[in-house]
Amino acid sequence: MTKRKIILDCDPGHDDAIAIMMAARHPALDLLGITIVAGNQTLDKTLVNGLNVCQHLNIDVPVYAGMPRPIMREQIVADNIHGETGLDGPVFGPLKRSAEKTHAVKYIIDTLMNSEGDITLVPVGPLTNIAVAMRMEPAILPKIREIVLMGGAYGTGNFTPSAEFNIYADPEAARVVFTSGVPLVMMGLDLTNQTVCTADVIARMERAGGPAGQLFSDIMNFTLKTQYENYGLAGGPVHDATCIGYLINPQGIVTRDMHVEIDVNSGPCYGRTVCDELGVTGNKPNTKVGTTIDTGWFWGLVEECVRMYH
Amino acid sequence: MTKRKIILDCDPGHDDAIAIMMAARHPALDLLGITIVAGNQTLDKTLVNGLNVCQHLNIDVPVYAGMPRPIMREQIVADNIHGETGLDGPVFGPLKRSAEKTHAVKYIIDTLMNSEGDITLVPVGPLTNIAVAMRMEPAILPKIREIVLMGGAYGTGNFTPSAEFNIYADPEAARVVFTSGVPLVMMGLDLTNQTVCTADVIARMERAGGPAGQLFSDIMNFTLKTQYENYGLAGGPVHDATCIGYLINPQGIVTRDMHVEIDVNSGPCYGRTVCDELGVTGNKPNTKVGTTIDTGWFWGLVEECVRMYH
Amino acid sequence: MTKRKIILDCDPGHDDAIAIMMAARHPALDLLGITIVAGNQTLDKTLVNGLNVCQHLNIDVPVYAGMPRPIMREQIVADNIHGETGLDGPVFGPLKRSAEKTHAVKYIIDTLMNSEGDITLVPVGPLTNIAVAMRMEPAILPKIREIVLMGGAYGTGNFTPSAEFNIYADPEAARVVFTSGVPLVMMGLDLTNQTVCTADVIARMERAGGPAGQLFSDIMNFTLKTQYENYGLAGGPVHDATCIGYLINPQGIVTRDMHVEIDVNSGPCYGRTVCDELGVTGNKPNTKVGTTIDTGWFWGLVEECVRMYH
Amino acid sequence: MTKRKIILDCDPGHDDAIAIMMAARHPALDLLGITIVAGNQTLDKTLVNGLNVCQHLNIDVPVYAGMPRPIMREQIVADNIHGETGLDGPVFGPLKRSAEKTHAVKYIIDTLMNSEGDITLVPVGPLTNIAVAMRMEPAILPKIREIVLMGGAYGTGNFTPSAEFNIYADPEAARVVFTSGVPLVMMGLDLTNQTVCTADVIARMERAGGPAGQLFSDIMNFTLKTQYENYGLAGGPVHDATCIGYLINPQGIVTRDMHVEIDVNSGPCYGRTVCDELGVTGNKPNTKVGTTIDTGWFWGLVEECVRMYH
Repeated sequence: MTKRKIILDCDPGHDDAIAIMMAARHPALDLLGITIVAGNQTLDKTLVNGLNVCQHLNIDVPVYAGMPRPIMREQIVADNIHGETGLDGPVFGPLKRSAEKTHAVKYIIDTLMNSEGDITLVPVGPLTNIAVAMRMEPAILPKIREIVLMGGAYGTGNFTPSAEFNIYADPEAARVVFTSGVPLVMMGLDLTNQTVCTADVIARMERAGGPAGQLFSDIMNFTLKTQYENYGLAGGPVHDATCIGYLINPQGIVTRDMHVEIDVNSGPCYGRTVCDELGVTGNKPNTKVGTTIDTGWFWGLVEECVRMYH
Repeated sequence: MTKRKIILDCDPGHDDAIAIMMAARHPALDLLGITIVAGNQTLDKTLVNGLNVCQHLNIDVPVYAGMPRPIMREQIVADNIHGETGLDGPVFGPLKRSAEKTHAVKYIIDTLMNSEGDITLVPVGPLTNIAVAMRMEPAILPKIREIVLMGGAYGTGNFTPSAEFNIYADPEAARVVFTSGVPLVMMGLDLTNQTVCTADVIARMERAGGPAGQLFSDIMNFTLKTQYENYGLAGGPVHDATCIGYLINPQGIVTRDMHVEIDVNSGPCYGRTVCDELGVTGNKPNTKVGTTIDTGWFWGLVEECVRMYH
Repeated sequence: MTKRKIILDCDPGHDDAIAIMMAARHPALDLLGITIVAGNQTLDKTLVNGLNVCQHLNIDVPVYAGMPRPIMREQIVADNIHGETGLDGPVFGPLKRSAEKTHAVKYIIDTLMNSEGDITLVPVGPLTNIAVAMRMEPAILPKIREIVLMGGAYGTGNFTPSAEFNIYADPEAARVVFTSGVPLVMMGLDLTNQTVCTADVIARMERAGGPAGQLFSDIMNFTLKTQYENYGLAGGPVHDATCIGYLINPQGIVTRDMHVEIDVNSGPCYGRTVCDELGVTGNKPNTKVGTTIDTGWFWGLVEECVRMYH
Repeated sequence: MTKRKIILDCDPGHDDAIAIMMAARHPALDLLGITIVAGNQTLDKTLVNGLNVCQHLNIDVPVYAGMPRPIMREQIVADNIHGETGLDGPVFGPLKRSAEKTHAVKYIIDTLMNSEGDITLVPVGPLTNIAVAMRMEPAILPKIREIVLMGGAYGTGNFTPSAEFNIYADPEAARVVFTSGVPLVMMGLDLTNQTVCTADVIARMERAGGPAGQLFSDIMNFTLKTQYENYGLAGGPVHDATCIGYLINPQGIVTRDMHVEIDVNSGPCYGRTVCDELGVTGNKPNTKVGTTIDTGWFWGLVEECVRMYH
């Protein structure tokens, strides 16, 4: 089986770090590069976090810094969930890794243009890097095999009643992506909130051991704390990691074809992923929207990846 | 126990008819009047349907014709669900009942102003009558004990991906009601879609017998047909009737306090009930939103009401 | 020549008072009734002001109280321009006149339904009364000869950068009126701001004498004060009175056919009258929009009306 | 006197060509580079047009290709005004000039970052290049001396009733620029429409002679044709050239400090420059908005520039 080529676009971030850990080692995937975007924290912080995770886990994949600001709106960050550094919890040694010189947007454009149309983009933060690449070089559109993203919800949001953080942090970029015509797979809160990582799951990954097991534990213990403080929950979802799960084995996740539109009007639904769940609009579906994840399978897969770092 | 005084504001409509049937006879309720609004069909049709149901079931409650148009938007009807008459299915004898001379809006204002603040409004159609009454005579606001309404959703809608029909048919009226400060209880699709009336339920009500059992059967057989045609479903919800269920015994229904705002911006979320399910806005809850209904209890209650027409 | 039958719908208000003065006596017009709406001040105040003007000038026309609130939005008033009473400046004797028992909306509906289609509505405040009448009884639409209104602008507004007060005070009502299909004439700020009443004009009307001359002076001296305080201007427009001028002799005013749409989206253009001045949309014109007024003729007309009260 | 350093960002375009002609030779200005954006036509065409003008007039300034698409919205072009090529009318020889290799956005960022804060940006097309540069490298913001742009209107628009073409073609980019905090000067339609180029003006520039006089004539004769066809006008404005006029001598143009906000809500005011002409919002002015131009002076200046190409 050929490995599936992916570029992981992220804003680490706790669940982003889990996604990096899984994507970098699993034999089903060929992680070509990691592009960083502002989101959970400012770009300087998400970049350091991404580099720290790679250094800590000995992941030898190039890391590219991307957009420090959304394409139109004022910047927001999710420090309520991810802390002052954007990855509070784990303690890392002195950082020696550094980002590539090339801008993430240029890396995405050049890599796609030189590809044979076999690269999948995996954005698990705000869609700024992807949107700017699409608008700067529209010729990349037919070169993208698929976009498997974390973001949105057809139920209620987590950052506003209508919107999930990644989309709300750059709704205009999301609109670019959802109107691009590229095949889309969306892991929204409806699905990702099913991956509730409790103390039991953390203990299991600790037992699996190695640096990845310990990192998982450090990361998710902090997530548990902020989930409890913000939403009163006793477990925390690992949103971004579901995209990697889907790419490794789509059969663990049920999706449904829907037309998805981004509401960019200022007002109470700014940043909402409007999902035509019942097909009432007559618009042709443009997105496979995740609805259900087999969590037994999923935690098994996470453990499998953790053990690859022994 | 004193009966709870209610005015039922409706646009019959199939599930409206079930609501009338339940509200008119149950000993826990004192149905003061029925006010009719345009919605599922035009006012001339919803009025005739309301009168037909009352005449057919010998319900001796005054019926008032209200607003024939929404307060701002162009009119829509739900003929895809309710048919050309708005209550396709049952066959009624020649109509002898007629509406009262007083306009529904004036009836609502006068009745509330002359009350001791003990009347509950139960709007199960577009909120036009209620909104116009509130804006024409703001002094009614402190006179309303509570508004228990059918409309909206915190998940996806049924008429657009964002909006439920009753709210979408008059979003501006809904905004008046949801910003009025009156205590609100909202039975949205999230709850009402749990009341899936299947062939089994219909057979049960037929066995319960009498004119109400037969009417239930005639009504719901048509609903099953349109639910299947529109959404591919094998059962149909009796949305409006859940409000009557709640009024008879609120313990059969779980609600959660949320702040609800109506999106009135033109765009893909026009008419959405934006429900702050997680309390992320910091806005004080203004609505008890129904989340779960005990359907065993509910069908028992419906049967109990059916048997009261023997 | 037959007199033109009009209903004057107003929210007095300084310039409203001038409009009443002109409409009540000029032989070209038959003022059937005055309907009052909230706007420049709350309804209790605008009603008293309307009655005071009628009593003071011996105007024997029935006055009807209408809508105390806009159809959807929260209420605003223009006390920065019209003062605490809504007609600060003139001092009136004890009020003996009272409003009719009938609600203004009912009066408008009944009068139109009993007419031969020869009545013109002249709303010079927020369009709430007119909109509610239209939505409560759509059959009035073909009965309205024309609507000649004061409101809006194709340039910048006076209450927000985009909107003029009358429209901004009830944009949803304005949308009802501008989508009604009734022939419309709009005197917006572009035209009404040309009627700058300076100290010279006031002196001229004082010289014309009588109770109307004195009232004009008392009213406009206060207007001059608030125009200076709010906008730094040395003269004040008599917005509403231009509608009466147009009805007496349309040749003093240049209009241009435009399609006008009301922006009801929340945002910086809420309440804007979007006027297709260049015809770029392809939408059929629905409004004659005033562009230029012959101010020499206009002040002459005002003086002519003032002298009719001798 | 030191020359004022400028980067001209344009989408040629007829009036853009006049702006290039004036900016490249006038001794008051130091034209560092020309950056091209999609707008009046697609980028491939506006780029060729810009190169053709430079080659034809022997203008030795580097030209950079920029964004081929707006940052969010679907692309529109103004072929009704500028024809199939974007610069219909003049006939050019075979094109030998070519664009620089560097992307316009990178050129803008690098040039500003290496400057001493003395460079003025002069965007006379959609603001896409400027907005992407600002969001990709926010550190340029304090490096920009001023932005003198053509776009918008406080009266009615030319592409929709609310919006001028440059802003409407990329409202989200405009919002980035108008919220950037950089000192702004806006030449909107209110001012630029005063520069009506009639047959007389064309004859005058022909008499001034040389290649620039002939080019002016070829360009403006086509503009006259499309202005007549689209708006029924007997003359055509040279919108973009007013920015160059302002930079050469601001005293020929009256401006007024206003707060300007871009409406990015979908709806009838999408892309409007909401100008607080009367200061009613209390928002601090962020833009000098052109209100009046001394056209005698302006045509003299254009002729002066034309003669510099002898």
